[in-house]
Amino acid sequence: MAVGPSTLAAVLHPVKGVRIGIASAGIKKPGRKDVVVFELAESATVAGVFTKNAFCAAPVTVAKQHLAKTSPRYLLINTGNANAGTGEIGMADANSCCVALAELTGFSAEQVLPFSTGVIGEKLPVEKIVAALPQALADFSEGNWEAAATGIMTTDTRPKATSRQIDWQGQSITITGISKGAGMIKPNMATMLGYVACDAQIDTSLLQEIVSEAAEASFNRITVDGDTSTNDACVLIASGTSGVIVTADSELRALLQAEINAVFLELAHAIVRDGEGATKFVAVKVAGANSVEEALKVAYTVAESPLVKTALFASDPNWGRILAAIGRAGVDQLNVDAIAVHLDDVLIAEKGGRAASYTEAAGAAVMKQEEITISINLNRGDVTETVWTTDFSYDYVKINAEYRS
Amino acid sequence: MAVGPSTLAAVLHPVKGVRIGIASAGIKKPGRKDVVVFELAESATVAGVFTKNAFCAAPVTVAKQHLAKTSPRYLLINTGNANAGTGEIGMADANSCCVALAELTGFSAEQVLPFSTGVIGEKLPVEKIVAALPQALADFSEGNWEAAATGIMTTDTRPKATSRQIDWQGQSITITGISKGAGMIKPNMATMLGYVACDAQIDTSLLQEIVSEAAEASFNRITVDGDTSTNDACVLIASGTSGVIVTADSELRALLQAEINAVFLELAHAIVRDGEGATKFVAVKVAGANSVEEALKVAYTVAESPLVKTALFASDPNWGRILAAIGRAGVDQLNVDAIAVHLDDVLIAEKGGRAASYTEAAGAAVMKQEEITISINLNRGDVTETVWTTDFSYDYVKINAEYRS
Repeated sequence: MAVGPSTLAAVLHPVKGVRIGIASAGIKKPGRKDVVVFELAESATVAGVFTKNAFCAAPVTVAKQHLAKTSPRYLLINTGNANAGTGEIGMADANSCCVALAELTGFSAEQVLPFSTGVIGEKLPVEKIVAALPQALADFSEGNWEAAATGIMTTDTRPKATSRQIDWQGQSITITGISKGAGMIKPNMATMLGYVACDAQIDTSLLQEIVSEAAEASFNRITVDGDTSTNDACVLIASGTSGVIVTADSELRALLQAEINAVFLELAHAIVRDGEGATKFVAVKVAGANSVEEALKVAYTVAESPLVKTALFASDPNWGRILAAIGRAGVDQLNVDAIAVHLDDVLIAEKGGRAASYTEAAGAAVMKQEEITISINLNRGDVTETVWTTDFSYDYVKINAEYRS
Repeated sequence: MAVGPSTLAAVLHPVKGVRIGIASAGIKKPGRKDVVVFELAESATVAGVFTKNAFCAAPVTVAKQHLAKTSPRYLLINTGNANAGTGEIGMADANSCCVALAELTGFSAEQVLPFSTGVIGEKLPVEKIVAALPQALADFSEGNWEAAATGIMTTDTRPKATSRQIDWQGQSITITGISKGAGMIKPNMATMLGYVACDAQIDTSLLQEIVSEAAEASFNRITVDGDTSTNDACVLIASGTSGVIVTADSELRALLQAEINAVFLELAHAIVRDGEGATKFVAVKVAGANSVEEALKVAYTVAESPLVKTALFASDPNWGRILAAIGRAGVDQLNVDAIAVHLDDVLIAEKGGRAASYTEAAGAAVMKQEEITISINLNRGDVTETVWTTDFSYDYVKINAEYRS
């Protein structure tokens, strides 16, 4: 179950300098492709954003340490096991995987960034992963983006990838990226896993600025169940192979940032559309707020309210639940009479109650759609923020009551 | 569906000076008893706590105004319609009901406190309620507590009431109370509706202290779905008919406070046990915190995590989800290696991962129970707080996708 047609881009342009190999380690199911290795050109720079969950997984800790010390040449990703909540053994296991890949490729273990996703709290099957590495290396190709998007899935029902090209003053930059995630989705720096590469040449500090800005406006604006993962990581690679140099404060940087923001937002939306049990794709837009914090507080309170989410599942324009959620969001001195709430273009509530012009038929017509925008105008400031979410269905309960081993 | 046997007390002692009448106004269903009127003796004092939801319902606003001005003689409660999100018309409707009851009884409208619970956003059927008032007045009796508990139910599957008596230096105080609520439960000052009466003589300011303390430790420590209602109200009555005078800073006050706290906690627990779709009654106890705020932040994050709640529904000791929720609770400088997590007496996690002594069999045995305590020791301070919650089941989705009209 997912909302709308697949958003997988028809063409995933290869990014020169980025080769990908996929292998089957049999972590959870025999034969399932569950290990993905990225190989980066020597000219590549890498930047990333990671979960702020205090119980961050071992590979997240290791990846951050390695990224701070070296220019990474490999990303090693497995699905089926998150290597989270695994204590010191988990740290040793993440390192062992890096060491094994380094030995096979002739680089240092610190030039490998490890990533894991899957069940929390079980020991990483290091031997299985290490045994699969030669198969992954033998598979290296610049054309493997879609296979990689499939290879990192957990409860996702479909792969998530997008791609675009920029032409600028006779030069060209290619951007391609993938993501995964369906549950435990309320990224706090990044999504479960996202990998985006471009072939421009960008120094690491600028690349970090670009990835932080793009993640803030995309992965940090989505929620499926309000649960921030222990393994969130999002990586942006600039392979440098196009010969196009991007510098800070340049016109090209602004253009590239806009395109990378768009890629990130597409990948973030793809995660929400594939949210566990999702039947609706819902934007919650809060305008007229005094601050970003205030707008997000209201937007997330509405987006995560179980009562609003079950009403969305039922296609019930139960605006009273939306008002109740706004009212408990903790906004100081909120003047409820000033607030207006729309479902798409239908004004449903104003002056503290149902709008005079509102009819159930008009509200019900919007709620029947698969894609809905709930617009809330607080009419007290000029800040607008939007978050994206899903409804709450029987299948969410089913998936999460049954998913583990 | 509700957890455990009914907790309705076998005997609900009448409170002298408090008479109750029940009537059928046919607000949602013909014949359903849906109007409850309390009549209080002239000697009675009344104090209350009310929702902090900014979209508080019209009757809450009116009740607070009346309580500030007079000594109330009547409480008028209806179920089936919350008179919330109804704007100025809702205020006028709440007042009209008070005026009608005042005319029938010869008191002023300000001596009536109105309360409503039920669907949000629909106009209160004032005429139906007013037409039912004579029937309620004719029904006045001190023995109607159980009928009142039934008369204020909405999606509740069973009435909630408790009663106890204190003997002190040859004198006796009776305390009896009722509550209702099953969904939209995360009280922020009080539950959906709670009414507790005793027959001691207590001045209003002391009574307000007593009700605030009791509500803080009971109704303000429960959550079913994290949604704070627009209509929360909890009222404590001291009818004064026993002749026992309670004064501030007295030994009797301490004794009475403890008993009233216990009554409130029983009523609050009864709401959680009857939480929408609930199959488990779960205490989340956080010890070793640096502050009450910190302890509650962790406790509520765990108690409201959809992933923890679906694991509880599945009886799955998925301690990884508990750790992930603790990790995203936003506690500064949390040392995850210091944290210990128990399910009842079973140590499941320590040092950032699964406890060495833990076995799935031991965890599964606890999770199969209907009543479970999740104990989290942060080991960084000496504050302990407990909140109570339920699991998240198919039936929660069903009830809230289907409930409205």
